[in-house]
Amino acid sequence: MTLQGNAVIGQSGGPTVVINQSLIGALLEARRHKAIQSFYGALHGVQGVLDQNFVNLSLEETENLERIATTPSAALGSVRKKPTEDDCREIFRILQSHNVRYFFYVGGNDSAETAHIVHTVAEADGYDLRVFHIPKTIDNDLLVNDHCPGYGSAAKFVAMACMGDGQDNRSIPGVKIDIIMGRHAGFLTAASALGRRDESDSPQLVYVPEIPFSEDRFLSDIENVLSRQPNCLVAVSEGVADKDGTPILQSKEVDSHGNVQLSGTGALGDHLADLVKSRLGLGRVRADTFGYLQRSFPGIVSEVDAREARDVGARAVRAAVTEEAQSGSIAIRRIADGPDYASETFITPLSTVAKHTKSLDREFLNSAGNQITDAFRDYALPLLGGLPEMGGIKAPSVDAIKG
Amino acid sequence: MTLQGNAVIGQSGGPTVVINQSLIGALLEARRHKAIQSFYGALHGVQGVLDQNFVNLSLEETENLERIATTPSAALGSVRKKPTEDDCREIFRILQSHNVRYFFYVGGNDSAETAHIVHTVAEADGYDLRVFHIPKTIDNDLLVNDHCPGYGSAAKFVAMACMGDGQDNRSIPGVKIDIIMGRHAGFLTAASALGRRDESDSPQLVYVPEIPFSEDRFLSDIENVLSRQPNCLVAVSEGVADKDGTPILQSKEVDSHGNVQLSGTGALGDHLADLVKSRLGLGRVRADTFGYLQRSFPGIVSEVDAREARDVGARAVRAAVTEEAQSGSIAIRRIADGPDYASETFITPLSTVAKHTKSLDREFLNSAGNQITDAFRDYALPLLGGLPEMGGIKAPSVDAIKG
Repeated sequence: MTLQGNAVIGQSGGPTVVINQSLIGALLEARRHKAIQSFYGALHGVQGVLDQNFVNLSLEETENLERIATTPSAALGSVRKKPTEDDCREIFRILQSHNVRYFFYVGGNDSAETAHIVHTVAEADGYDLRVFHIPKTIDNDLLVNDHCPGYGSAAKFVAMACMGDGQDNRSIPGVKIDIIMGRHAGFLTAASALGRRDESDSPQLVYVPEIPFSEDRFLSDIENVLSRQPNCLVAVSEGVADKDGTPILQSKEVDSHGNVQLSGTGALGDHLADLVKSRLGLGRVRADTFGYLQRSFPGIVSEVDAREARDVGARAVRAAVTEEAQSGSIAIRRIADGPDYASETFITPLSTVAKHTKSLDREFLNSAGNQITDAFRDYALPLLGGLPEMGGIKAPSVDAIKG
Repeated sequence: MTLQGNAVIGQSGGPTVVINQSLIGALLEARRHKAIQSFYGALHGVQGVLDQNFVNLSLEETENLERIATTPSAALGSVRKKPTEDDCREIFRILQSHNVRYFFYVGGNDSAETAHIVHTVAEADGYDLRVFHIPKTIDNDLLVNDHCPGYGSAAKFVAMACMGDGQDNRSIPGVKIDIIMGRHAGFLTAASALGRRDESDSPQLVYVPEIPFSEDRFLSDIENVLSRQPNCLVAVSEGVADKDGTPILQSKEVDSHGNVQLSGTGALGDHLADLVKSRLGLGRVRADTFGYLQRSFPGIVSEVDAREARDVGARAVRAAVTEEAQSGSIAIRRIADGPDYASETFITPLSTVAKHTKSLDREFLNSAGNQITDAFRDYALPLLGGLPEMGGIKAPSVDAIKG
């Protein structure tokens, strides 16, 4: 007989614009199964469990669900917390007292690790608990997955931002540096060039964390572009590091997973802009750090991403109640490419996505390591659900009149 | 008989996402009038005139026009240049040699000043030239105008960005500082709060250049918010200055109109974030500088703004060829408020909008000067053409179980 009891869902890590699609996908699926009695939301992830800070999502107004689904950022609140073994024992005591038998955790690899720890301690304690991780990350760096929910929409924002900013930089020429999120993986920074139409289009240069960053090389690359045209837009990952792996610039702030703060400061952009100004002696050099808008801007959503985010939430609940597995992480596999793009979900053991991350394939970058390739375009474009078309003057020039 | 000849149009100053609507509005109107023979576009404004860098827009493919209209940033290229009297004489020599009798210049108050200078020298020289300024500025600071084309869309971007970022800041609580464009006028920064639903919603604090900025006051305002809730989003104009008018932080870079560089650096945000961290001893403090995305992000366009931007372009050409005036600036007057919002265009002398700017009305801010009022909401909301609705969990909490 199917395990009967209540369910808890939590959201963790950096939010995305589609993380609530996963929440609503899970909730709507749960309403179809009698095994789950009440579906609780833990406010701020495992911290909410520890504080018994639950809301009863089974009583949420149905007409409110679609509005929540299209609202950016974790509706239940998020957290960056890695529970200790003691925390986990307290978590079970609380889950048991609430007759919770299903635990769903939406997040990235840190969240998968949290789910893995919860699951491991549950097993050791002999507490019958289904634990499923639901993937989410704008970084697109989860192992096993072809790509991750949250990435397509963030990539769409970054691609569109660079298309617009490229127009701006062409209209008032100079060097423009855009700093893009991505601690270790360059997927999001690489997306900056997905709207690029030709060699002269922006961004002319792309720097990801996977390729050792050299300031000298960065400056000569820019000089090289400026020898051909007056404008140069450069996309740089916040996580770029030198050949020894030392980040070019970072703060000392660290969270409980050991992650260093990179976002929420303009320091790297300003440093690189100063470098270009002083070393190349250029006048108009600007830097923008896209910051939290990349993961939270309402309305810039890939339809493909929204659908897949909802699917992984639903699949986690379905897998749990149908006893397809006792625990696991929902993953995404691509089953068709190009205009026929299609994907499906499957279950992978929690340990396979926990803790570790993947990087951008080397074939996604050109040999110089400063621009994306068609292989990356083929991989990423279907995930964005379309990009706007940029127009431009095609009218012929008028002959100058000597006088 | 109507003055016969060619026309030149240029775009100047900081671009917007609807500046090409004005270009296409003017061009389509010109095609209806025989007085204008060829319609030239000057690449990069008056610099393009000086360089005889013209394209013949009369030969532009018609099916390309709407694509240009919806593309952000000046399709002809922009410039920040104040022509000298010598430049102006050279401009006339060139315009005359090309039989140009109509000169249209799209831009803000600096561009109106440029148009005014060109017009004044033309009159003194006895050269028969119609000179019209077409308004554009995300700063919304042109005199005479109820509001300016470009503002509604930039305001929509800022309002939406803060709605999303506010969700993000609520989901992972802390202090978040968002730096918003606006050298002297706080209209764009004030727009940050247009999506705010209640007192606890983001941004909780708004600082504009019109109100002297005090770091002590800023810190105590934040402490006050944090005494009521764990999250505080603060919108700060890049142009905030202390009681003596000294900007809190600025670079030394100045353009030929005497404008100091404020955008394209994260320095102000980082400074304020450091201040909050060190003086209030808070952990999670982040700052983002919205930067050039505010004026260039494709697709985040107010329909009202796009329509009005096209209207002012068309009106300039109509006014010139019908000899409604010899010169002038097209301005916008509001003729109905609220849900029935409507506006009309009229002609004002170039001198009335050149050089000087307007500020945010004091009644648009609360008595503390750190939040917008309903008066501002009534003024600005119709210009945005709607904002998305944010959802939130309404489900009841679950009683804690003591154990």
